[in-house]
Amino acid sequence: MLSQAEFQANALSVLSAHQIKTDPADLATWGTDWTRSFVVDPLAVVFPESVEQVVQIVKKAPEWGVALVPSGGRTGLSGGAVAPNREVVVSLDRMNAILDFLENDKIVHCQAGVITQQLQEVAHQHGLFYPVDFSSSGSSQIGGNIATNAGGIRVIRYGLTRRWVAGLTVVTGTGAVLRLNHGLVKNATGYDLRHLFIGSEGTLGIVVEAEIRLIPTPATQQVMVLAIPQLLDILKVLRVFQDSLELSAFEFFSELALQKVQAHRDLQRPFTRSSPFYALLEYDENEFEQAQQTFAAAVDAGWVADGVVSQSLSQASALWELREGISESIAPYTPYKNDISVRIGEIPEFLADVEKVVAQNYPDLEVVWFGHIGDGNVHLNILRPPNVSIDEFYERCHTISPQLFALIQARNGSISAEHGVGLLKRDFLSYSRSEEEIQAMRQMKRIFDPHNILNPNKLLATSQ
Amino acid sequence: MLSQAEFQANALSVLSAHQIKTDPADLATWGTDWTRSFVVDPLAVVFPESVEQVVQIVKKAPEWGVALVPSGGRTGLSGGAVAPNREVVVSLDRMNAILDFLENDKIVHCQAGVITQQLQEVAHQHGLFYPVDFSSSGSSQIGGNIATNAGGIRVIRYGLTRRWVAGLTVVTGTGAVLRLNHGLVKNATGYDLRHLFIGSEGTLGIVVEAEIRLIPTPATQQVMVLAIPQLLDILKVLRVFQDSLELSAFEFFSELALQKVQAHRDLQRPFTRSSPFYALLEYDENEFEQAQQTFAAAVDAGWVADGVVSQSLSQASALWELREGISESIAPYTPYKNDISVRIGEIPEFLADVEKVVAQNYPDLEVVWFGHIGDGNVHLNILRPPNVSIDEFYERCHTISPQLFALIQARNGSISAEHGVGLLKRDFLSYSRSEEEIQAMRQMKRIFDPHNILNPNKLLATSQ
Repeated sequence: MLSQAEFQANALSVLSAHQIKTDPADLATWGTDWTRSFVVDPLAVVFPESVEQVVQIVKKAPEWGVALVPSGGRTGLSGGAVAPNREVVVSLDRMNAILDFLENDKIVHCQAGVITQQLQEVAHQHGLFYPVDFSSSGSSQIGGNIATNAGGIRVIRYGLTRRWVAGLTVVTGTGAVLRLNHGLVKNATGYDLRHLFIGSEGTLGIVVEAEIRLIPTPATQQVMVLAIPQLLDILKVLRVFQDSLELSAFEFFSELALQKVQAHRDLQRPFTRSSPFYALLEYDENEFEQAQQTFAAAVDAGWVADGVVSQSLSQASALWELREGISESIAPYTPYKNDISVRIGEIPEFLADVEKVVAQNYPDLEVVWFGHIGDGNVHLNILRPPNVSIDEFYERCHTISPQLFALIQARNGSISAEHGVGLLKRDFLSYSRSEEEIQAMRQMKRIFDPHNILNPNKLLATSQ
Repeated sequence: MLSQAEFQANALSVLSAHQIKTDPADLATWGTDWTRSFVVDPLAVVFPESVEQVVQIVKKAPEWGVALVPSGGRTGLSGGAVAPNREVVVSLDRMNAILDFLENDKIVHCQAGVITQQLQEVAHQHGLFYPVDFSSSGSSQIGGNIATNAGGIRVIRYGLTRRWVAGLTVVTGTGAVLRLNHGLVKNATGYDLRHLFIGSEGTLGIVVEAEIRLIPTPATQQVMVLAIPQLLDILKVLRVFQDSLELSAFEFFSELALQKVQAHRDLQRPFTRSSPFYALLEYDENEFEQAQQTFAAAVDAGWVADGVVSQSLSQASALWELREGISESIAPYTPYKNDISVRIGEIPEFLADVEKVVAQNYPDLEVVWFGHIGDGNVHLNILRPPNVSIDEFYERCHTISPQLFALIQARNGSISAEHGVGLLKRDFLSYSRSEEEIQAMRQMKRIFDPHNILNPNKLLATSQ
């Protein structure tokens, strides 16, 4: 196996010394993502500063005998950017330039290392809007968003990252640079490889540049938080609001989730009385009246016990904190995260099923529910008790997962709605994809990464 | 080579007699699409009535020694559904059932042979809307729309067919049935094969079913037609309208296009005075005032000479006829169609370039311009003079095409914006896709169609 010194000597043929890190602290930092349950053991971290340097690294990797782990903002939750096995982490941190703004096309051409929030700000400077948003926007990078087809909080109105990628530049496992779609709206010239690379988790190519489409800034948004006593009424509430106005977001969270985020951020409760579940809605401020009427109807129907509406931007963001702070507030519990989805119409029965599995298997554990629900996506977080080790806890959860996944499979749902497969879900992929699909994926991996150097053993196990 | 009688004998092991046609008139009908310049010579036409029958046909094809041409509404304009070489046409005409309507998901699950208009009507019956629309909606089928990622007239607001395909069932060239994505909004479980099959023109698999997402019915639309003296002002007009309201459509057409459609349908001219160019805009009726103000500003700026606005639904559809009737009105001229696109910001300079090529090469020919332009897509139709044979005319146009395609390539544009590649653009693919991309496409074709029986020689030439 290559030593760090040998790798460094090799890498200096392509990179400068300041572009290579091998200190243990750096390896620990860049060798992992937001997961905390995997072995982290990279050989080195490299920081290319141009597409050409990425090409050189990829081309030399087989000769050097190293595998590569593409790395963005390391906010992933499935271990897709974890380097567990002496890989070289290829960080896009230093390829973070805005290359161009195309006014008539409303397109930002940027490098993959641009932070989501930076892109949102560039859009704002031009009087435009980048609609993909999530709690990790301050750290996540565009390249990583594309590699995982990131979703977030406004999917019901604006879709996932995929919709906004008008052009994509990737370096494949052979070092080929593919410049895909060039920012066109319409391009019917054969297989759209752009869409194949979106969501491929760095296993087919390294995203190095993207042309991201922006939209006009929407109206000011109003936020409403509702207290909903019955889990199964949440869908009814979603339905009546969707029928009367255009929702930008429809999130839900449980009382325990609220307690955790409140304690962590010292926030006020939205209501004096607690409720088993809450929903957070966002919509254009000018639809205020429809929202009020719908709220009244939902109260009359008995689905909603109480409600609060933002009267200012600061109130709106305070209400959002109740939802967006959840992940951070439960992070100290190293929760076992289930990021699952079914068709929206399946949600009520599915949630009832899941509640049974949870009650049977985790009677002694705290379970935090939250999620986007308006798009069929629920986050089910099992909290680790303080006296149980991470390994022991994850082992227990992994044993129970197949029961949950079988319920998802029975409903043709997804075992990873928006977190990707990475390492965490790799061995469970067949619950959401057929054997034929997985075989086809393997064959496609061989086309674009014949030497198996790009994120090996992620998404698809190498050994099979 | 297999005789028709031998094929029929073989096919009867899988199909009933009424599902096989070999009459010359039937072969001529189902062997072609809306193109008129290709040899049409199918061996037979088959009409499967179930996914299982499609599977059987595909599995037996190599044994029978036949290639298959998947066939939908045959409204294609690039020869993708033409059978020039003793292929068996697999028509989806009889797989035209609406299988399910999923109310909470706003999804219609249907077979591939459902006509676009039929889907629009089903949506309407449920108080919903299917936003993809084009002049061929009365004949085109969902399967064909998906196979070509059809665009149409409302792309600037609603995107292409791709956006509405929530689930897709295809039969690959090995006879495998892939049920992809199952109607989920969020599903981050590896490569999204659904998007690979969308736009693959029947070369990777036969689309047999789809889950199509619908949306709430939008507000009543108003239509405005503008007289625009200068070609290069069209983009400025688009820009000011897009800045002040949400356009559902922005189409343009030239005076010659207007003359042709007027003559063909006996329509009234929108204005007493003629203008070199016209634009048709569509927007929510409630944005009427912004539209009026913007119109006034565009007149003041000298970009717009005159305008007319629909006052009723019937007036709106009469104005749409001016644009939607163009293709049909020029069909008798068997026009040579260029369906090209560049980034929106490139349009003005690109149009100026194209005008030069046209003036130099077609000084004696009528050239009809029209297109969607709001999405960068222009249709440039060269009309065949009555005294010139189709072969001679197309040969001349094909000789000139590379000049036009080189201009497109220089601007990273598309030689086929929405018509697909089929036979017509196959040998020009490298003007829009790199050698590496084309190689990757060939390798992907081999994964899903190892026996090269699905639409061989379309999109990618078999011989290479």
